[in-house]
Amino acid sequence: MSYNTFGHLFRVTTWGESHGSAIGCVIDGCPPGLVLDVADIQPWLDRRRPGQSRFTTQRQEADQVEILSGVFEGRTTGTPISLVIRNTDQRSRDYGDIATRYRPGHADVAYDMKYGIRDYRGGGRSSARETAMRVAAGAVARKVLGDMVSIRGALVQVGPHAVDRARMDWGMVNENSLFCPDVAILPVWEEYLADIRKKGSSIGAVIEVVAEGVPPGLGAPIYGKLDSDLAMALMSINAVKGVEIGEGFASARLTGEENADPMRMENGMLHFASNHAGGVLGGISTGQPVVARFAVKPTSSILTPVPSVTREKENVDVMTKGRHDPCVGIRAVPVGEAMMACVLADHLLRHRGQVGDYKPVVL
Amino acid sequence: MSYNTFGHLFRVTTWGESHGSAIGCVIDGCPPGLVLDVADIQPWLDRRRPGQSRFTTQRQEADQVEILSGVFEGRTTGTPISLVIRNTDQRSRDYGDIATRYRPGHADVAYDMKYGIRDYRGGGRSSARETAMRVAAGAVARKVLGDMVSIRGALVQVGPHAVDRARMDWGMVNENSLFCPDVAILPVWEEYLADIRKKGSSIGAVIEVVAEGVPPGLGAPIYGKLDSDLAMALMSINAVKGVEIGEGFASARLTGEENADPMRMENGMLHFASNHAGGVLGGISTGQPVVARFAVKPTSSILTPVPSVTREKENVDVMTKGRHDPCVGIRAVPVGEAMMACVLADHLLRHRGQVGDYKPVVL
Amino acid sequence: MSYNTFGHLFRVTTWGESHGSAIGCVIDGCPPGLVLDVADIQPWLDRRRPGQSRFTTQRQEADQVEILSGVFEGRTTGTPISLVIRNTDQRSRDYGDIATRYRPGHADVAYDMKYGIRDYRGGGRSSARETAMRVAAGAVARKVLGDMVSIRGALVQVGPHAVDRARMDWGMVNENSLFCPDVAILPVWEEYLADIRKKGSSIGAVIEVVAEGVPPGLGAPIYGKLDSDLAMALMSINAVKGVEIGEGFASARLTGEENADPMRMENGMLHFASNHAGGVLGGISTGQPVVARFAVKPTSSILTPVPSVTREKENVDVMTKGRHDPCVGIRAVPVGEAMMACVLADHLLRHRGQVGDYKPVVL
Amino acid sequence: MSYNTFGHLFRVTTWGESHGSAIGCVIDGCPPGLVLDVADIQPWLDRRRPGQSRFTTQRQEADQVEILSGVFEGRTTGTPISLVIRNTDQRSRDYGDIATRYRPGHADVAYDMKYGIRDYRGGGRSSARETAMRVAAGAVARKVLGDMVSIRGALVQVGPHAVDRARMDWGMVNENSLFCPDVAILPVWEEYLADIRKKGSSIGAVIEVVAEGVPPGLGAPIYGKLDSDLAMALMSINAVKGVEIGEGFASARLTGEENADPMRMENGMLHFASNHAGGVLGGISTGQPVVARFAVKPTSSILTPVPSVTREKENVDVMTKGRHDPCVGIRAVPVGEAMMACVLADHLLRHRGQVGDYKPVVL
Repeated sequence: MSYNTFGHLFRVTTWGESHGSAIGCVIDGCPPGLVLDVADIQPWLDRRRPGQSRFTTQRQEADQVEILSGVFEGRTTGTPISLVIRNTDQRSRDYGDIATRYRPGHADVAYDMKYGIRDYRGGGRSSARETAMRVAAGAVARKVLGDMVSIRGALVQVGPHAVDRARMDWGMVNENSLFCPDVAILPVWEEYLADIRKKGSSIGAVIEVVAEGVPPGLGAPIYGKLDSDLAMALMSINAVKGVEIGEGFASARLTGEENADPMRMENGMLHFASNHAGGVLGGISTGQPVVARFAVKPTSSILTPVPSVTREKENVDVMTKGRHDPCVGIRAVPVGEAMMACVLADHLLRHRGQVGDYKPVVL
Repeated sequence: MSYNTFGHLFRVTTWGESHGSAIGCVIDGCPPGLVLDVADIQPWLDRRRPGQSRFTTQRQEADQVEILSGVFEGRTTGTPISLVIRNTDQRSRDYGDIATRYRPGHADVAYDMKYGIRDYRGGGRSSARETAMRVAAGAVARKVLGDMVSIRGALVQVGPHAVDRARMDWGMVNENSLFCPDVAILPVWEEYLADIRKKGSSIGAVIEVVAEGVPPGLGAPIYGKLDSDLAMALMSINAVKGVEIGEGFASARLTGEENADPMRMENGMLHFASNHAGGVLGGISTGQPVVARFAVKPTSSILTPVPSVTREKENVDVMTKGRHDPCVGIRAVPVGEAMMACVLADHLLRHRGQVGDYKPVVL
Repeated sequence: MSYNTFGHLFRVTTWGESHGSAIGCVIDGCPPGLVLDVADIQPWLDRRRPGQSRFTTQRQEADQVEILSGVFEGRTTGTPISLVIRNTDQRSRDYGDIATRYRPGHADVAYDMKYGIRDYRGGGRSSARETAMRVAAGAVARKVLGDMVSIRGALVQVGPHAVDRARMDWGMVNENSLFCPDVAILPVWEEYLADIRKKGSSIGAVIEVVAEGVPPGLGAPIYGKLDSDLAMALMSINAVKGVEIGEGFASARLTGEENADPMRMENGMLHFASNHAGGVLGGISTGQPVVARFAVKPTSSILTPVPSVTREKENVDVMTKGRHDPCVGIRAVPVGEAMMACVLADHLLRHRGQVGDYKPVVL
Repeated sequence: MSYNTFGHLFRVTTWGESHGSAIGCVIDGCPPGLVLDVADIQPWLDRRRPGQSRFTTQRQEADQVEILSGVFEGRTTGTPISLVIRNTDQRSRDYGDIATRYRPGHADVAYDMKYGIRDYRGGGRSSARETAMRVAAGAVARKVLGDMVSIRGALVQVGPHAVDRARMDWGMVNENSLFCPDVAILPVWEEYLADIRKKGSSIGAVIEVVAEGVPPGLGAPIYGKLDSDLAMALMSINAVKGVEIGEGFASARLTGEENADPMRMENGMLHFASNHAGGVLGGISTGQPVVARFAVKPTSSILTPVPSVTREKENVDVMTKGRHDPCVGIRAVPVGEAMMACVLADHLLRHRGQVGDYKPVVL
């Protein structure tokens, strides 16, 4: 069974291979009447587009999105929104020499073991190119959430170099091509990444995504928890190996006293003194910022040859020469934001379905 | 929208509150003809049962499971398997004094913000008692997987004290009530937990679950990845704040060279020199052990009063006096194993549905 | 794959075999805060209960429903509602002599071909006993719909004897045990059915279900149409062989002029001059009564021996001696109503999820 | 909630409006390794294409399908298959005069009541043009089913004129543009339809679809029955108002003796003496031909003015002048076949998922 659909009421189905003629998605269940235009989607795609920094792949794709259905006279109709991006810079000959050998650390061998198919064109369906459609869908999800909810992502760690949270400045993130929120660490990262790139190596990273203005009550018990859906969503991004909410793995070292988020009524409003929980209790949003982080492994596309095998069961050493990112974590920032937007939009509709239109909670 | 069903082809729906008359689950989609009896399920429940160690809640539940349907003459029929456990030690008066106040760090306030309902009976649906049914379902999932697949879990960190992986011995895990695989750290943990318990405090933990013998090819691209389904499954366990696969968050610090898993043909079989990937590439199993870890926060039920509020919007300090675990991570070990079993069973059937019965892959 | 769950947001999972220890269902996604008690469900079950008319099976089941979860202090909590009915009159020896032979026209042979299992205890999972849980779920669905929506069913044809629509009186339906709305046809049916019963024969029937007060806008394009979901729901009832909406099969004989439902504004409200459409246009409710009919075949349990085979591939003639209904269509009336209620409740929540709380439509 | 996806393991999501720039579908879950090319799909589309008979709409669409993903080197890859047809003959000015008035009997008013959107371009999403993608998906489904299963459809009734089943000849169906299997009734239909067309009227019809070679065991108990999924699938086709399986509504008039399908072993094989059941018992296929029929209402697009209303709540009479079919049932024949193919393909994979690869059943 293949599963290329994400979400329940706000449902995104993506399709397309890295080097096929196009990639696209179908967004089903979007509320009607939302103002939507290519101009609402394209800027988010531009933000993710490769070739913007010397630390991301130099593949040049205009990534021009086209709306084929679901919008009439500038508004969503409630019927499926079909989005498509034509692939223009496919250069599949770059990959020709690995048609029969598996790139180690890539999905090549796993896909072949599953499907008996070797789609050697740049990873085929497993390519990170698919994430363009997540970003497009995320743009629509932001429309569903409205101005009430604001979602921001940042790179918070590159290899051994983490940001200093005391210096974190969200306003800075869009001012540099590394989505870095810490002015002091930025030059460190740039120097470090230049070195990684020069060596033909790659490095991992950690991304943080924060949603503010999320209404309380989103999520559901047990298997529809907001945080478990977020975990699935973020783990489904290419190269992600870990996901955490709030304190995350750090909570393993904390006592109950240290991890407590005291509550108080202040001016008739519920106020939390801290947010170790990351905005979610029992799988349900509390009105605090929803905070998630995810770890991205270093891409396996490196210039150092790595032992591998061929389809014909011969040993071979594989060096990947294509256009690749020294730190794929960089471009994962807008993708993480998009997945957060999609999960929240879906849960907003799911909550509304069961409980009715959101009313200001008394607390 | 509520969502109490987990899985696609092997589907588990749980129901029941901590202090209601019973808890139960319905397992739909189980293959027919599997030998199944209460004796196949009860031992796993006994392993999770509270009151077995002085570091877990002293609530005494026999947790006797009953099979109400789906099994005939000792074999599964292919129709829904209904399992039920009657609650016997409910003692709901323990919780009476917090009927109107929210326990900080618990789901109380979030449930009330969502549903407008305050089920003060020990957490109601959000209680960890629900995990008993996950363990029961996991026992059935193990039957689906057969002897081919072996799943083991262990506690690998308690507060600041992590196991030494060089000393890890899986054979030890079932020999102590802390599921500890490291003989040298065990007394450290015991002393540390005794102190936590004495203080009325609590502490976080990390659990590792490993599945060996998983056939290659399980999983699916993009939104049905084996690892993203695992992330959802493990994050859905009460108190879990982080999930990682293989190197997990450590991969953020690694270079592509360090993180590579070299492949070689050895005696006609594919062999990986390492397992940084945790057995999953591109969301699909490779035949290597599937390795997941998850972080459990310290329970918020502590003797130290924490600022909170009441339903009537008054400030109050809440101290939780009930029977609770100083380290809820301990009992999460069999639950983590069960979720791994359910995810793998579901993916085994999903894979078989799309691609047909598993055939030995040539590699 | 087995599929014992029905609905999307209002989701019902049933379990249990005819002669197992119990049958039950789990209702997930029910809105919170609804007043719900056993007394809201039991009367509907009593209405369906066998043994009330001499023309239905004499199996005596108290069919006492128990609520195991999801209700607290008299209101739904938004978490799963678990309902169970213990089987009390199982008398499985009635069926012992057909343990190895397939009852012709029953699901026996099909289940065995699918699962390789012969659950000879009165049909096991394929028994009409499962429909008791549909009726119970329907009672909860009616709570979701509220007083706004009224759902009524009636028997409109028994064998060759159809009601005269000019004489149809809904008020009569609950005054006789055949759910007959036509005072003149009732004695005809009684005499006809007495004869069928005396012969040990059986006869088919047609049931009509009408929902009034359904708000416009329920349903969804293409594969979530209100009428296609109704078709699935009604066809899933045991022994049903046909479903129609509005004019149904009669529409094949009509011209566009004859089948038109003219619209007019009257006192500022939209008014339809007729309802050939059965309340649904393009899969979406229009505010007119939703009208569905379904055909129930004669049960195959008859005293006349019918050629059949055994598991051991021997020819045999099978005569069914158990307690059975001469006209299973009679008891299908409350079941049809319940399925209509479940479909409407699900679509009400789905509509609210996508579009928001229902607002009085201007038309 | 919108619902434009059909099926569980073989899943089809369609998108696109009648007069948008394109229509398309995404087929997810298709097994890998199937030989698939545009030439496998196009002939089925050509068969459905309008303008082939003087009794169907004269809209001229080349309906050239393009495969955008999921096929590599002539074989399916197991990843989503994206199909698209560009709309070429949109002529939306034909519909301009009804931009504010609702066409009676069409979905116009219902869509507006649901979504608050009036997509006046030829019905938008509710147009029968969507069925082109069903036919395309059905062509892929036939590949999944393989040569084992043969699916055929025919028109069996046009207005008052039904075929004589004794004269039914499947070989004739593709020899005439009305999909008529009865050589004697064909001229009657042609004359009758010529008259209907001349009057600017329309007429209903009944279509029969038969699948032979369906392996026993497809389907599932209760809510995943093969026949209830067929009912949903066929009822979801535009203008369909009734669905029946086997004897269908005629079974209401039959006794148990008349409706029995006697079984006998003949030459070691199970043989049924008749097929009143239509190939399905208890929701599961028996190996007999699966027989379904559905009724299509007369299209509401007629030259006779019918009372209607405008968005501005004014009364108006509407006459539809566009290019329309006097008998939309004709073109529903290939659509019905396609839905049968999709349902069977889905159930084949679902059965394989739960029970394993199909093995010849002993009976």
